[in-house]
Amino acid sequence: MLVVLRNDATPQDVERACAAIRALGLVPHPIPGDTRTAIGITGNRGPIDPAALSGLPCLLELIPVTKPYKLTSRETQPTDTLVHVGGVVLGGREVVVVAGPCSVEGSEQTLATARAVKRAGARLLRGGAFKPRTSPYSFQGLGRAGLEILARAREETRLPIVSEVVDTETFDEVAAFVDVVQIGSRNMQNYSLLRRAGRARRPVLLKRSMSGTLEEFLMAAEYLLAEGNRDVILCERGIRAFSDYSRYTLDLSIVPELKRITHLPVLVDPSHAAGRRDLVLPLARAAVAAGADGVLIEVHPEPDRAWSDGPQSLTPEMFATLMSELRALAPALSRGIAAVA
Amino acid sequence: MLVVLRNDATPQDVERACAAIRALGLVPHPIPGDTRTAIGITGNRGPIDPAALSGLPCLLELIPVTKPYKLTSRETQPTDTLVHVGGVVLGGREVVVVAGPCSVEGSEQTLATARAVKRAGARLLRGGAFKPRTSPYSFQGLGRAGLEILARAREETRLPIVSEVVDTETFDEVAAFVDVVQIGSRNMQNYSLLRRAGRARRPVLLKRSMSGTLEEFLMAAEYLLAEGNRDVILCERGIRAFSDYSRYTLDLSIVPELKRITHLPVLVDPSHAAGRRDLVLPLARAAVAAGADGVLIEVHPEPDRAWSDGPQSLTPEMFATLMSELRALAPALSRGIAAVA
Amino acid sequence: MLVVLRNDATPQDVERACAAIRALGLVPHPIPGDTRTAIGITGNRGPIDPAALSGLPCLLELIPVTKPYKLTSRETQPTDTLVHVGGVVLGGREVVVVAGPCSVEGSEQTLATARAVKRAGARLLRGGAFKPRTSPYSFQGLGRAGLEILARAREETRLPIVSEVVDTETFDEVAAFVDVVQIGSRNMQNYSLLRRAGRARRPVLLKRSMSGTLEEFLMAAEYLLAEGNRDVILCERGIRAFSDYSRYTLDLSIVPELKRITHLPVLVDPSHAAGRRDLVLPLARAAVAAGADGVLIEVHPEPDRAWSDGPQSLTPEMFATLMSELRALAPALSRGIAAVA
Amino acid sequence: MLVVLRNDATPQDVERACAAIRALGLVPHPIPGDTRTAIGITGNRGPIDPAALSGLPCLLELIPVTKPYKLTSRETQPTDTLVHVGGVVLGGREVVVVAGPCSVEGSEQTLATARAVKRAGARLLRGGAFKPRTSPYSFQGLGRAGLEILARAREETRLPIVSEVVDTETFDEVAAFVDVVQIGSRNMQNYSLLRRAGRARRPVLLKRSMSGTLEEFLMAAEYLLAEGNRDVILCERGIRAFSDYSRYTLDLSIVPELKRITHLPVLVDPSHAAGRRDLVLPLARAAVAAGADGVLIEVHPEPDRAWSDGPQSLTPEMFATLMSELRALAPALSRGIAAVA
Repeated sequence: MLVVLRNDATPQDVERACAAIRALGLVPHPIPGDTRTAIGITGNRGPIDPAALSGLPCLLELIPVTKPYKLTSRETQPTDTLVHVGGVVLGGREVVVVAGPCSVEGSEQTLATARAVKRAGARLLRGGAFKPRTSPYSFQGLGRAGLEILARAREETRLPIVSEVVDTETFDEVAAFVDVVQIGSRNMQNYSLLRRAGRARRPVLLKRSMSGTLEEFLMAAEYLLAEGNRDVILCERGIRAFSDYSRYTLDLSIVPELKRITHLPVLVDPSHAAGRRDLVLPLARAAVAAGADGVLIEVHPEPDRAWSDGPQSLTPEMFATLMSELRALAPALSRGIAAVA
Repeated sequence: MLVVLRNDATPQDVERACAAIRALGLVPHPIPGDTRTAIGITGNRGPIDPAALSGLPCLLELIPVTKPYKLTSRETQPTDTLVHVGGVVLGGREVVVVAGPCSVEGSEQTLATARAVKRAGARLLRGGAFKPRTSPYSFQGLGRAGLEILARAREETRLPIVSEVVDTETFDEVAAFVDVVQIGSRNMQNYSLLRRAGRARRPVLLKRSMSGTLEEFLMAAEYLLAEGNRDVILCERGIRAFSDYSRYTLDLSIVPELKRITHLPVLVDPSHAAGRRDLVLPLARAAVAAGADGVLIEVHPEPDRAWSDGPQSLTPEMFATLMSELRALAPALSRGIAAVA
Repeated sequence: MLVVLRNDATPQDVERACAAIRALGLVPHPIPGDTRTAIGITGNRGPIDPAALSGLPCLLELIPVTKPYKLTSRETQPTDTLVHVGGVVLGGREVVVVAGPCSVEGSEQTLATARAVKRAGARLLRGGAFKPRTSPYSFQGLGRAGLEILARAREETRLPIVSEVVDTETFDEVAAFVDVVQIGSRNMQNYSLLRRAGRARRPVLLKRSMSGTLEEFLMAAEYLLAEGNRDVILCERGIRAFSDYSRYTLDLSIVPELKRITHLPVLVDPSHAAGRRDLVLPLARAAVAAGADGVLIEVHPEPDRAWSDGPQSLTPEMFATLMSELRALAPALSRGIAAVA
Repeated sequence: MLVVLRNDATPQDVERACAAIRALGLVPHPIPGDTRTAIGITGNRGPIDPAALSGLPCLLELIPVTKPYKLTSRETQPTDTLVHVGGVVLGGREVVVVAGPCSVEGSEQTLATARAVKRAGARLLRGGAFKPRTSPYSFQGLGRAGLEILARAREETRLPIVSEVVDTETFDEVAAFVDVVQIGSRNMQNYSLLRRAGRARRPVLLKRSMSGTLEEFLMAAEYLLAEGNRDVILCERGIRAFSDYSRYTLDLSIVPELKRITHLPVLVDPSHAAGRRDLVLPLARAAVAAGADGVLIEVHPEPDRAWSDGPQSLTPEMFATLMSELRALAPALSRGIAAVA
């Protein structure tokens, strides 16, 4: 159920409405907006009797929410969520490119990559410090040392940084360093981690799992919003099907569908989906043409020496080409994109 | 094995080389080109001994073909195949839009659609006369009457027509009417039909099956080429995965991969993949951005009254919007597209 | 709609009822039974008005059929269909094993296999004479010569034979030789072939396609029944998913579901599903335990020299082991199985 | 690399060999056995030089391990792992049935179920106290109160208990109560949780994820073994494919393949795979026939009132039927099974 208040509702009115909702054993989620203030209600078993809410102060309207996802739905919030990260806005008119190495391997590799992607027009720097790896014997990331390297790269390039968090134990350590916390596809339904990230004051980049349906993906995001974090960015990264030529199957159809039913920004990661560098460029173009708010691209100064995911990493030169192609494309889609630095 | 002849090889030299290949119990497939003449060889069990071919007239080079698909491979023919249909070229610089109703339902519906799509910039008219239907109790198409209606629409609009052929019995009847014979996804591995179409003098639009791998798709095309038909157009139309919001999962990653390994033109059908009209427009943009040589779009004057596939059919107005969006996109991809008629 | 007649309805009554149904523009399908005679009705668009049928002679009851599949449904025929092939009954209490080589390669190979599988307890002999092959350059089967070899093997062993038919052109030739016509998974939605087989007087073994849903599978069978052929046997042979260890993913859950909603016999082909001989034996046991009416097993005297599907073919010794394991299992499932010959 | 020591190696020899391996910067994993002692080695990047190990005390043989999974592989340990839980042995001759409610809802429901499944022949009691739920608004389990109820049920029935652990924070709390810790399919690649469970002194039941390949499944188990926990039980519970009649697609082919390449016990959970109670019984039979060491079955005294997964829960009566069918089946497969209590 969504409670819409009148334009003239004061913050005190909103708080009184929330208190009244709590008194009914329900959980209020105030959603401030330019043209109205609304309060999402969760915590009910079964439908809520509208009569119980009819006495709320400044009540304009009660709107039933028909989907299992509530706060992520456009039924609850019709306008796009804009996620602000440093000076960058995700979910707005600009196509935002997030780029960087799969793993932070060292200071030099990371700084070289950061400078190159900054120069070519990337707006955020990505890099893994804590890595979820299929094998217990694979390189698991530099950990805190990796975060410190990323922080230095940010200092120099002023690119805000995105890095993955793999568990609740290291959550605070990662969140203290990064500008956006990434939750990877293997953890999309790690509900304890989602709840922890939902209580954090950091934007969260949530990747779809390999077998996640649209509904499961939005329900995972709902965990974040239900805990109070509204700065959530969704990311499609390929599903598991039967491809004999790419690592996963990039499901671009979900981009316009997500844009239709949720107000959250939507990114696409063609690098992990393809698992092959030569497919990254056309898929990045296709993602933007499908309506994505941005792309995540893996870049490495020497891909053949990368400690992880080398085959899908672009060289800085290939990344510059990708940026110039997206730059040609964006205006044709009525979107902006960063100029060369 | 691919036999490359010297530039100065005459048609007689080519014929003599073919005869020599036949004498070895093998099947020669001459592939004329601007800069060289090559002869693909099939029919061998196991590798061919190069020594057996060393005496061919005007022999320049012997190139082993490493893939199970031979004639469809760029190893055999590095340059793009251009398929000419009426004045339209598929596989070249122009993004070609094929549009029309799922089923031909009557003269008025077909003519209205043909006029509308022509006006908006479509270059070929599609429409089903013989329909493969999941249920034996569903409308199975108007058959020959449908073909006659399509022919009238062509006469008036000058749009070449594409229509599906569902079996060898009706093949000649359909091929006599249409400019491009379509083989649908359910028949991608109907090898008798493929062989029949391979012997025809009509371009063939071959759709990928719902569970077809890249290799199976190219092997199906190989049936067509091996029988002598080089005018083959490939079409991605969605694979069967686990989507909870679209009918199939459009696999756009296959577009750049096909362009890399085969010389044949590649189209995309977002209408069947999505099964929902609101996804067609962004997916058509994405297909073109991924490198497709064109798209197939279902259009119906009154989609809610369509006898088949209404939910995914665009109205003529929506189709005009789609064309104008593709028209904005094409130059950003260094491609051309038809102007409004 | 299903029309159930009274016990005392004579053949003349049934014929009069059918005529009355035809007069309404509908298609009657009489379904004789031990305890009742029923008439399935198809050909309607939208629901049939029961009033229009209330005057039928000997009318006992009108039962609406709620599924898109009508004649294949237990709503229409609650009792199991028993398909009689030679002296063998499929769909009854006995677990029936169909065995033989993937391809008929020659007289000796086929006879040796036929004798061995007969001795071990197989009840039908399978073998491919017309082969649908992914590559146009692969061995396509011995054709008519292969059928003649199969016929000789039948003469000697008295095992009825099952062989695949790949197109309408060769349908009569195959049907004249074999006891059961097989329609392979690639042709599950080849509707022209289904209609042709539906009009034939031969039992049909219909394999599920790699991407076929339960509903699509039953609708394909419905094509056969709608044309008048009631001797239809369904066969699960693996779907296409993402397995990294087997060729397809055998979907055994469909066995009990098919047994629940259709009256047709259900077989399972573990050989094609697994693509590996070492999985065939446990999967055959599992299929029978899941409720399958029988299994199809590929056997070859020298699997490593087989012209097709060698890796999944059992040796005669392995097949004898399989039979003895099924023989141990059958009584525990209250089923019978053939003794050693 | 696997180091095999001579029969006469003393515990001191083993410890000295381990120390020598550590001195090389590698990680030794001693694997005691009846007929030999072996030491698995991990921690290497690239192949290990055998010469470096040639001086180990009591060295019999060095065996290279060719798979990415080492300790889970039969290359490392050819004999079956037997996991002892209370008096129950998993992975041995007996087919072990684990049964109980999806969620612990209360004392009465849990005790009634425990008594009923014990009476019918279940050997372990399952029940969820901490529940991973797709929606943040769904019932998330009774938590500690649920564990206490399970402990009381164990006290009365003497059935050891299995319950899921969803995060590292609550790991100790759960592990203190239960006999087997379950890691659910959504957490199969939650590596922090796997490492935590690998360090615990509790057997772990690891479920395959919905999109997990065989290799990913074994690599997840490898995390557990690499941390020192050898009491690992694998469980297939259905993959995500395109089924239109069941919740997931039970992949029974993986059972014989797992039994071939790993020494760990393998269970099957037909309840979650099917999502429908009527398929559970035939699939349980099929799982055992495919070679599973046991099955997990959801049972509820009043399934229609269950707080979660009611549609797939058996009544106690249906469960007794299932047990009696498995009891008929087991001897035909040369396996034992518990008698009625």
